[in-house]
Amino acid sequence: MAVLALDLGGTKLASALFDEGGRILKRDAVPLEGKGGGDVGLLIQSVVRRFRGDGRHIDAVGLSVPGIARSTTGTVWAPNIPGWDDYPVIDDIRRIVPDTPVVMDSDRACCMLGELWLGKARSCTDAVYLAVGTGIGAGILCGGKILRGAHDIAGSIGWMALDRPFRDPYGETGCFEYYASGEGIARLTRECLEEDEGYAGQLRRVSESELTAHHVFTAYEDGDPLAERVIAECIQYWGMAVANLVSLFNPEKIIFGGGVFGPALRFLSAIGDEARRWAQPISMAKVRLEASELHGNAAIHGAGFLALKSVSHDNAS
Amino acid sequence: MAVLALDLGGTKLASALFDEGGRILKRDAVPLEGKGGGDVGLLIQSVVRRFRGDGRHIDAVGLSVPGIARSTTGTVWAPNIPGWDDYPVIDDIRRIVPDTPVVMDSDRACCMLGELWLGKARSCTDAVYLAVGTGIGAGILCGGKILRGAHDIAGSIGWMALDRPFRDPYGETGCFEYYASGEGIARLTRECLEEDEGYAGQLRRVSESELTAHHVFTAYEDGDPLAERVIAECIQYWGMAVANLVSLFNPEKIIFGGGVFGPALRFLSAIGDEARRWAQPISMAKVRLEASELHGNAAIHGAGFLALKSVSHDNAS
Repeated sequence: MAVLALDLGGTKLASALFDEGGRILKRDAVPLEGKGGGDVGLLIQSVVRRFRGDGRHIDAVGLSVPGIARSTTGTVWAPNIPGWDDYPVIDDIRRIVPDTPVVMDSDRACCMLGELWLGKARSCTDAVYLAVGTGIGAGILCGGKILRGAHDIAGSIGWMALDRPFRDPYGETGCFEYYASGEGIARLTRECLEEDEGYAGQLRRVSESELTAHHVFTAYEDGDPLAERVIAECIQYWGMAVANLVSLFNPEKIIFGGGVFGPALRFLSAIGDEARRWAQPISMAKVRLEASELHGNAAIHGAGFLALKSVSHDNAS
Repeated sequence: MAVLALDLGGTKLASALFDEGGRILKRDAVPLEGKGGGDVGLLIQSVVRRFRGDGRHIDAVGLSVPGIARSTTGTVWAPNIPGWDDYPVIDDIRRIVPDTPVVMDSDRACCMLGELWLGKARSCTDAVYLAVGTGIGAGILCGGKILRGAHDIAGSIGWMALDRPFRDPYGETGCFEYYASGEGIARLTRECLEEDEGYAGQLRRVSESELTAHHVFTAYEDGDPLAERVIAECIQYWGMAVANLVSLFNPEKIIFGGGVFGPALRFLSAIGDEARRWAQPISMAKVRLEASELHGNAAIHGAGFLALKSVSHDNAS
């Protein structure tokens, strides 16, 4: 058996052919080069066609998408791909492989499924994949199934309300994402730079428009006080979010991934300490906070698992 | 078919015999009178024996418990019943009706199931029952199933972190419950009375030890400014909690119950307004906030539904 996994991101389309044991038989990646609408559909079709042309039978196709995967219509809302408000991507793929099951889910759900298949959540029934990168999202496994919600929008954890009172800029991204995403870390640092006129450290020498979370992590390594302040604040938000996941979902594990975790993994034990202050104590004592080991490959593994499950008898999730 | 539903609370044990359409054939309630441990077990046994003695066949027994219902062991942790740290209540009931299915769940899960069976959540696959009384808990329905978590402690929403930084008293109850439960409203009012020495309104005339949320609601009705301030603060917390439920679970409905909703139902639209500022906007636009119509009977209906499902073929939840 072989399944084709596609991981559509905001800037590239990664693809991999998996056997049922999770071995990657072949993989590829192509840049989107700013394409939108039907052009992205054509790109996906060309990749599927190429894999099919290899002569190897493809038993199913799984797709991870960067947005809302509408399970009833097979369409996608992807904010970073122009023209993908309700794009019928499943139809596009079916035109190339008409007799093959085609399944999809959101990238956060796929990351969770990837961890369930071959990562840190193997044998878990209840777990959360917390993805902190440019934005923040969560793939949530409850009783062995991915939490979808009534309209496939569950897990929008970037919108979590964590600090009163409401401030208008939260309306763009959500409170948690506003502060504790990669973008949020840079934003918070710019705010601190503006306020703290006396600060003359290394972050002052980075041009405002180029400042990223990675500058802040490097400065933190060097003992920079402004970076330390920003990180301390983020640890509070990450800890509160972890606490809320623990109190609501009582998961066995929370798995940290995305570009920020990454470098912020060194704060995992501090995040646990902060979470312990807030969370339901019995539930908190039992959860484990862990780093993804699939790194950037969690979503494509999840897409592969999704495809595999669509043709196997064990539809666990 | 007839099923026996038992609703064990902190102060009484309610019981009802349901037919499969949800009609109550007979009901009863007995006070616990401060009993604990095995005495509560004996009381439950005597109630089951009495219903069985009526000559009518009981097809299943469902039990709602005020704490953690451990699904693997059939034991219960109930903080308000002395000696119920890990009490084997299912064994007690089985001794009276050895050939009958006996099932149980937490009161918050049972409230959600009651609403699913005969209340506001009929036909829902994704919904939340938010119980605000002395404490706060949530029964959560995801994809047609009750969210249990890895150790049956999911839905501990009273522990939700909603306001930085952490304060020590949150460690007893959780941040959300500290402010926005019935107890929390009274506590917040006492704090405001202490701070606002100039206030000479009606709440000043209630003795501190007797002050309850109901005094605050009455004062609010009369336009009392301190009550208005307390309620405005609670609306913020309730709104943030609703927002977080909406962003994480994407439910069709959030159903408000418990002693506080009740009188606080008049604030439902203000709570919605506050939630709209924080929540994932697509998900928020689709959710409906509604009042329970089963009132104090949601849990016993849920226990009945649980029993019914254990003997029917449609094990939807």
